[in-house]
Amino acid sequence: MRIITIGREFGSGGRELGKRLADSLNIPCYDKEVMDEIAKLHNIPVERVEFISESDISIVYPTTIGRSFASPFAFNNDAIKVLSAHHSVIRKLAVQGDCVFIGRSADLILSEYNPLNIFIYADTQSKINRCLARAKGVVTESEVKRQMKRIDKERAHQRKLLTDIKWGQRGNYHLMIDTSNMDIKALVPVVTAYAESFFKEN
Amino acid sequence: MRIITIGREFGSGGRELGKRLADSLNIPCYDKEVMDEIAKLHNIPVERVEFISESDISIVYPTTIGRSFASPFAFNNDAIKVLSAHHSVIRKLAVQGDCVFIGRSADLILSEYNPLNIFIYADTQSKINRCLARAKGVVTESEVKRQMKRIDKERAHQRKLLTDIKWGQRGNYHLMIDTSNMDIKALVPVVTAYAESFFKEN
Repeated sequence: MRIITIGREFGSGGRELGKRLADSLNIPCYDKEVMDEIAKLHNIPVERVEFISESDISIVYPTTIGRSFASPFAFNNDAIKVLSAHHSVIRKLAVQGDCVFIGRSADLILSEYNPLNIFIYADTQSKINRCLARAKGVVTESEVKRQMKRIDKERAHQRKLLTDIKWGQRGNYHLMIDTSNMDIKALVPVVTAYAESFFKEN
Repeated sequence: MRIITIGREFGSGGRELGKRLADSLNIPCYDKEVMDEIAKLHNIPVERVEFISESDISIVYPTTIGRSFASPFAFNNDAIKVLSAHHSVIRKLAVQGDCVFIGRSADLILSEYNPLNIFIYADTQSKINRCLARAKGVVTESEVKRQMKRIDKERAHQRKLLTDIKWGQRGNYHLMIDTSNMDIKALVPVVTAYAESFFKEN
């Protein structure tokens, strides 16, 4: 089974690269699909699934957990459902065959399948420019900066719950690419060739 | 000018990849050549140049520096010569045209030329196996481990003198490749294609 996971900094173009890579390899790419599946499974609105998945875990759990006056009934049921479905849905999609996963710690969740793990990053200004171009005037530069900081912090934090190796550190990944000033389309043949040689050897 | 720099963990195959990449691009690869040039320039044996270059800077400077009883004449002259020639020799080689540099912080020394900076790494066991295969029975596994630890520590330490970004962290590099279980030869066309697309955009 050939599974590719794409970790990425917010605004680095990792999602676009993952989707194009999947097209080039003619395999499905799972991104928001994971959220859709969780929403269906538990009959929770997909927006709420996304909110829970992208939040710092301490936001979705009440602060009373662990204190003597907290009752188990105070637990946020949706959060528990979403967080546990997160793993099972990713596994369910993975066993259907070769695929690309965007984010969501799929590299760690699927480690027994020896996925090819790629991390995409870029310098801050390139990421801001990419976001502004994509947003077409809907957001300002300072809003993008704030959002970038918040989301990357949450990604790093969520990873901490699963592994000791920090988010974005080389020990987690087989290939790491800086997309600053790079056309994502131009990278696709390169990464496709790398993936083919990776799966020949692994 | 197209300059490629290869940073690497000891035993990761970075040197081999750099040499093969240079061959594939038909440009020179500078590795020990930097040491040879420094040796010639100052008429110091090349082994001594290598020792100084690869040592923690505190080894080659006498410990009395900075204390009141240290005289300037106590400075280690060879060390000063080698460390300053290090920069000038790398610059002299770079202006001769497109090339690949292996290690020696060439990415930082040549930053104004916007080099393509690549970092090569691997998991510990792969690096040990690579070293043992190369050494053909001359060294033991525990000797390789010790040497690996010492050399990578020195590389990280030397970088600290030049930049705040830690050795091997993504902020320094455009492309980072894990060579564990990978055939270096198979990576060459991939990296060549990446380099060509990098220099088209940068």
